[in-house]
Amino acid sequence: MTDQQSLQANKEFLDQVKWDGQGLLPGIVQDIQTGEVLMVAWLNRESLRKTLESGNAVFWSRSRQKLWIKGETSGNFMKVQSILLDCDGDTLVLLCHASGPACHTGERTCFHRVLAKKENQAKCGCGGCPGCG
Amino acid sequence: MTDQQSLQANKEFLDQVKWDGQGLLPGIVQDIQTGEVLMVAWLNRESLRKTLESGNAVFWSRSRQKLWIKGETSGNFMKVQSILLDCDGDTLVLLCHASGPACHTGERTCFHRVLAKKENQAKCGCGGCPGCG
Repeated sequence: MTDQQSLQANKEFLDQVKWDGQGLLPGIVQDIQTGEVLMVAWLNRESLRKTLESGNAVFWSRSRQKLWIKGETSGNFMKVQSILLDCDGDTLVLLCHASGPACHTGERTCFHRVLAKKENQAKCGCGGCPGCG
Repeated sequence: MTDQQSLQANKEFLDQVKWDGQGLLPGIVQDIQTGEVLMVAWLNRESLRKTLESGNAVFWSRSRQKLWIKGETSGNFMKVQSILLDCDGDTLVLLCHASGPACHTGERTCFHRVLAKKENQAKCGCGGCPGCG
């Protein structure tokens, strides 16, 4: 059994995917081991079909107007373990094993800039978050 | 110190937020303790400002065309610990403490439907993902 094994689609939910006016929906790529949100990209029906078949994340590039196998040039494929659909059917989460950095900058995640944070996180007090742990 | 404490914005990155043609950008809400992606909603400048000031996630409702304090009716506020910006500046991750279910259905997360998954996840072999752990 390899990571490239195809994904078993849940047909009940597959019919509930809602594509936007351009036939797209956003896919949030999440690292299944660390929980990090790695990137967000767009899928159309064809890219979702190819993702299901190949087990690697395939997106639709809006700028290049073509299918885009994540990792086809860098080798940093996203091996999809499961795909989640939200309650209104217009956004996906792709839980993946990342073969390497997700970001074109070489960072592990595209979300590597801290826009804002609470001061003195260590005093948050929840006991469970990164600031408290 | 309370969870409502305001967030300290990183002005260097705040200027790099790219709003779309409607003056919006998507915010991915992630549970800071479990790592679960809980929901996705839209922010405009005003909702981001109010999120930074209040420490609670505030969105822009596209259907109602008004600001929407998550939890204002349910009591299930999203207490924001930090906000991440992606490499191209058009998507946010809000790392939050969830006061209760994120989804209107009562589920913890809006992403509670499994669209697809690999068969025999236990044989994935990585040793670290939910299927292997």
